[in-house]
Amino acid sequence: MAYLNDNYLKLKAGYLFPEIARRVKVFCEQNPDAAKRLIRCGIGDVTEPLPAAVVAAMHKAVDEMASRGTFKGYGPEQGYDFLRAAIAKNDFRDRGLDVVDDEIFVSDGSKCDCGSILDVLGHQNKIAITDPVYPVYVDTNVMAGHTGEADEAGAYEGLAYLPCTPANGFIPEPPKERVDVIYLCSPNNPTGATASRAQLAAWVEYALNNKSIILFDAAYEAYISDPAVPHSIYEIPGARECAIEFRSFSKNGGFTGTRCAFTVVPKSLLAATGTGEFKPLHPLWSRRMTTKFNGVSYVVQRAAEALYSPEGKAQVRQLIEHYMGNAKVLVAGAKAAGLTVHGGVNAPYIWTEAPKGVTSWLAFDKILNEANVVITPGSGFGSKGEGYFRISAFNSRANADEVARRLQALKW
Amino acid sequence: MAYLNDNYLKLKAGYLFPEIARRVKVFCEQNPDAAKRLIRCGIGDVTEPLPAAVVAAMHKAVDEMASRGTFKGYGPEQGYDFLRAAIAKNDFRDRGLDVVDDEIFVSDGSKCDCGSILDVLGHQNKIAITDPVYPVYVDTNVMAGHTGEADEAGAYEGLAYLPCTPANGFIPEPPKERVDVIYLCSPNNPTGATASRAQLAAWVEYALNNKSIILFDAAYEAYISDPAVPHSIYEIPGARECAIEFRSFSKNGGFTGTRCAFTVVPKSLLAATGTGEFKPLHPLWSRRMTTKFNGVSYVVQRAAEALYSPEGKAQVRQLIEHYMGNAKVLVAGAKAAGLTVHGGVNAPYIWTEAPKGVTSWLAFDKILNEANVVITPGSGFGSKGEGYFRISAFNSRANADEVARRLQALKW
Repeated sequence: MAYLNDNYLKLKAGYLFPEIARRVKVFCEQNPDAAKRLIRCGIGDVTEPLPAAVVAAMHKAVDEMASRGTFKGYGPEQGYDFLRAAIAKNDFRDRGLDVVDDEIFVSDGSKCDCGSILDVLGHQNKIAITDPVYPVYVDTNVMAGHTGEADEAGAYEGLAYLPCTPANGFIPEPPKERVDVIYLCSPNNPTGATASRAQLAAWVEYALNNKSIILFDAAYEAYISDPAVPHSIYEIPGARECAIEFRSFSKNGGFTGTRCAFTVVPKSLLAATGTGEFKPLHPLWSRRMTTKFNGVSYVVQRAAEALYSPEGKAQVRQLIEHYMGNAKVLVAGAKAAGLTVHGGVNAPYIWTEAPKGVTSWLAFDKILNEANVVITPGSGFGSKGEGYFRISAFNSRANADEVARRLQALKW
Repeated sequence: MAYLNDNYLKLKAGYLFPEIARRVKVFCEQNPDAAKRLIRCGIGDVTEPLPAAVVAAMHKAVDEMASRGTFKGYGPEQGYDFLRAAIAKNDFRDRGLDVVDDEIFVSDGSKCDCGSILDVLGHQNKIAITDPVYPVYVDTNVMAGHTGEADEAGAYEGLAYLPCTPANGFIPEPPKERVDVIYLCSPNNPTGATASRAQLAAWVEYALNNKSIILFDAAYEAYISDPAVPHSIYEIPGARECAIEFRSFSKNGGFTGTRCAFTVVPKSLLAATGTGEFKPLHPLWSRRMTTKFNGVSYVVQRAAEALYSPEGKAQVRQLIEHYMGNAKVLVAGAKAAGLTVHGGVNAPYIWTEAPKGVTSWLAFDKILNEANVVITPGSGFGSKGEGYFRISAFNSRANADEVARRLQALKW
């Protein structure tokens, strides 16, 4: 008799974004006229085309695949050397950070890596997760059997939730209790908050003292405009001994539909065996990649490499400026509508407080029905997200302007 | 204190193909002249360029990504409707098999899916694996904690190994003992053997009687030339209630470096909860895909779709004929060299017996050193592969001819 993984049955409702898609679909079917003026500021999906440097690199790579002499079959599972080298140099060594090429693991998405990293960690770890946060951290731990059941607010037994509130600027301090694995996301999805150097240093100190591991998600690193905010956790001394960093090309190069990301696993990062012996995680992650993955499409790796060319860098900069221009418009619009907003400065997300007494999903339905705008309900990111909603700045400027107008016209 | 996954420490040496790559690298560095005449028949990697229909589709898709109106961001995690529909129609419904579009899950590789499928299955399952076989089945079960330690021959405690030998034509019968999950691979990697309709029917009957699940790997389906051999396990009545099928575009379309595959999870397939209630696996796999995966690159999905166009189908047929022409040459060459061979008729692999007393790795080293040909040692596929080696037919015709000559010149 074959058994299924019972842990999946603990998961509540659908994954957030498919549930939003479902509600939007129903709305559009029932309101075909309103559907025509629908503007999507929900899922954090880019809207602008791929940079010209990327397009040129992809055409060139496709042509290589069309000729026997330049055709590429299986590549190295951890990524081609050309891409690992470009990443390590540009994102780390050129910024004075000590990361070598083969500490970079190229993958088809940060979402995949954030989930798969649990494969190489033990089930006995106590997991700490900020709340609200990107739902993948919680859901993949539920699937892996690291939790009990969820309570009514959606909080799972066995996880250590670290509340992010206006009082702590949405960046929690290390807890009093001991935790073994900590998910940190900065710039944060969904709150748009960024951890300061001092805040990250406190976390690194905590991790070193407790021999814990920090899983640092920096998918939105390119949106940092404040020069004081760290772009990488490796800017903090000691982080190479306690942190894994996740990065993505989705939001800088616009690769959400092209699929490429990378994870940094320093060779100096150790974890304990069941008998308390410390061993490096790097060979385990490498083994996972060679056994359960087959590398990213060659054409896509050439596309990612092009983001590091001088033209590619300039084009990425333009994309970021475009989206952050939208963020400015949306922050101003939401404020003019009398709403209290957070984020939107070093991140493409505006974390907005719904008027008193309005739940996140009520706000979602009202904004969908009356303003024909899709946002993301904050409660989908965790129980402490209740009463908030997230507005994404990924859009055309015209749409951002229009959303700002519609928010001001909305009567709560 | 963060713990690592101790199960990884049970894994023996490296994953097979990286170990081969390492030995070849050392040989080439030490023998630069011989390296120039090296011919690779080791890893089953295609050598011919992508079909013209695929190249055209990729260029078109790249252009779509270059323009705001046609740009694609996040796609459906389970694959675009256009591709799921093309697969379900061409590979199944047009062959009289009952598979609906949303039972198809598009992924970036069969290797990934074969490993990830364990995510949705319970840890209490008794796992049966044919021996020798594609190493990923065993290694991913070791990683998931489904085994004890390996013995000297590399067999892991806790797995039910089903020996594949010349006596059973390399297709084992169902065991007397009860097993819950069974990996079957046909056409087989590495033996090249195919399961007959009667053999598959016996397995489906066993699975239905025991409420077991068959994981059917049909990555080499396109190489079947014998009209009596089933292309899909769904040709067997009852298989929709007990089997998941893995397919790949790697070996038909030449996508080893392009990355696209799919898995069929019938909605009628049930598995037991811990309390013995039966529930469909389809929603669990769908949930896994939406939570731990973000879909295959849009450009790559358009590439895969092109394989189903009339031109694409004809071009795939030519590729298969090319590689199977090589197989014929290699079978004849190995036989003329006095070796006993299996496979090479409905699969691109020639499973060759090393001369008596010669181990697989000894044969590997001898063929590498003296013939400057890379093959794959049979023992890398399991303890019952000891004494065999696998010759891959993925090559140019000139190289296949040359390998056939060199095998005959080799003195054992």
